[in-house]
Amino acid sequence: MNRDRTGRSGTGAVARERIRAGAAEPTSGLAPGLVQANLIAVPADWAFDMLLFAQRNPKPCPIVDVLEPGQVESILAPGSDLRTDIPGYRVWNNGVLQEEITDATEVWRTHPDLVSFLIGCSFTFESGLVEAGIPIRHQEAGRNVPMYRTSTACRPAGRISGDLVVSMRPIPAHQVAEAVRITDRFPAVHGAPVHIGEPAQIGIDDLDSPDFGDAPVIADGDIPVFWACGVTPQAAVQASAPPFAITHSPGKMFITDEPEDTFRQ
Amino acid sequence: MNRDRTGRSGTGAVARERIRAGAAEPTSGLAPGLVQANLIAVPADWAFDMLLFAQRNPKPCPIVDVLEPGQVESILAPGSDLRTDIPGYRVWNNGVLQEEITDATEVWRTHPDLVSFLIGCSFTFESGLVEAGIPIRHQEAGRNVPMYRTSTACRPAGRISGDLVVSMRPIPAHQVAEAVRITDRFPAVHGAPVHIGEPAQIGIDDLDSPDFGDAPVIADGDIPVFWACGVTPQAAVQASAPPFAITHSPGKMFITDEPEDTFRQ
Repeated sequence: MNRDRTGRSGTGAVARERIRAGAAEPTSGLAPGLVQANLIAVPADWAFDMLLFAQRNPKPCPIVDVLEPGQVESILAPGSDLRTDIPGYRVWNNGVLQEEITDATEVWRTHPDLVSFLIGCSFTFESGLVEAGIPIRHQEAGRNVPMYRTSTACRPAGRISGDLVVSMRPIPAHQVAEAVRITDRFPAVHGAPVHIGEPAQIGIDDLDSPDFGDAPVIADGDIPVFWACGVTPQAAVQASAPPFAITHSPGKMFITDEPEDTFRQ
Repeated sequence: MNRDRTGRSGTGAVARERIRAGAAEPTSGLAPGLVQANLIAVPADWAFDMLLFAQRNPKPCPIVDVLEPGQVESILAPGSDLRTDIPGYRVWNNGVLQEEITDATEVWRTHPDLVSFLIGCSFTFESGLVEAGIPIRHQEAGRNVPMYRTSTACRPAGRISGDLVVSMRPIPAHQVAEAVRITDRFPAVHGAPVHIGEPAQIGIDDLDSPDFGDAPVIADGDIPVFWACGVTPQAAVQASAPPFAITHSPGKMFITDEPEDTFRQ
């Protein structure tokens, strides 16, 4: 395999091409080794508040790219188009989810000043976990990762506030420390876990009923491990009600050409 | 010495008090172990561009705090007042330096929507260099650190662009590697050097004529070592000409209560 700064044999571009042509499944496990990103786009008038919210909450909102108003091609993925290269989008009016779509071209036409934020996604480090022999239960089961709202408030910024959202991976107890060690090296894609075990302590009452994604598969001896999640801005949109926003659908990410190593410490 | 999260025996508050009462010298060497910060404040209409410029240029512009429009008390220094607690300010109109002042209360009165950015300063890690036995020539000579414009362009953001500014410390050749190692641990205050030796390669023709601060003291066997500098936004203000801006005067920083360890990796 020829590996260079534009990704492993162009697997990023290939994956985006498939998605642009209509593939709509979650992206966990796709294009391993390349950075995947969450999308939140808001009108220019709300862009400072959103950028400040991300800057003040770097664990759930590690910014990997911010596009100028109206732009749709990320420098992390030359030739990409944010309007078509994500498997699913959520459209929000005044903080209320209005619809889920798979092509956002029309959205950008009616909202030409949207400022797009790409936020690192923990799918990025899953390949590192797999390489270390740590099972990714949701991948093995062909499911989306389970995600939960917590009772932990993010630090507000201007008009934007909201609670932390986390993703959960059940990890065999003897491998939890190794999972922490591996993911700590990737602060730009959420880094080390924010919580290990004891879901109730962060306001999660029922692991089997995630707020986003699919129910988890938990094996005997697994410990639930929680990472800060890039769906957090969607909870903030619900809590803060900007007049308009468009996001990715949870689990359906933007795949860049950027090798994860770029963001490894 | 009693050390807690609010600083060593309140040395931050004591230093700010002295400055508020009129002390106007450069802050290198003051309140060792506490984070010092550069100031750039712009009208709310320019705040997104400035925040994005900082986010895209984290080496010269590592953000340690952003204040809401009109706010003047940083969470990094409870009880502080940005209008009075910096030894010197520069006032900019349309990118042109208009005046240097020591009290900015009137500025905030006439520009009530200013958004203030505090950007990490390399003075923060000087105490770590001293502890390692590395001489800080400008401190020893009682001078301000020399700073230079370079020919390296920053990544633009919206209406803001400009060239990188660096600070320079002459380091004995056998200690250069150690200086890199120590400062690399502090990415929030510019981190490792951006250039070592060969000033001409980054567009610096004459080390004895810095663009900001005082002429350097260079001993035999010293190598010039360059760190990204928080004066970079001032060069961007000159190049980009926002209608108004206020900054600190180079070398005269805002002293926080935050121990440098908070930002050590």
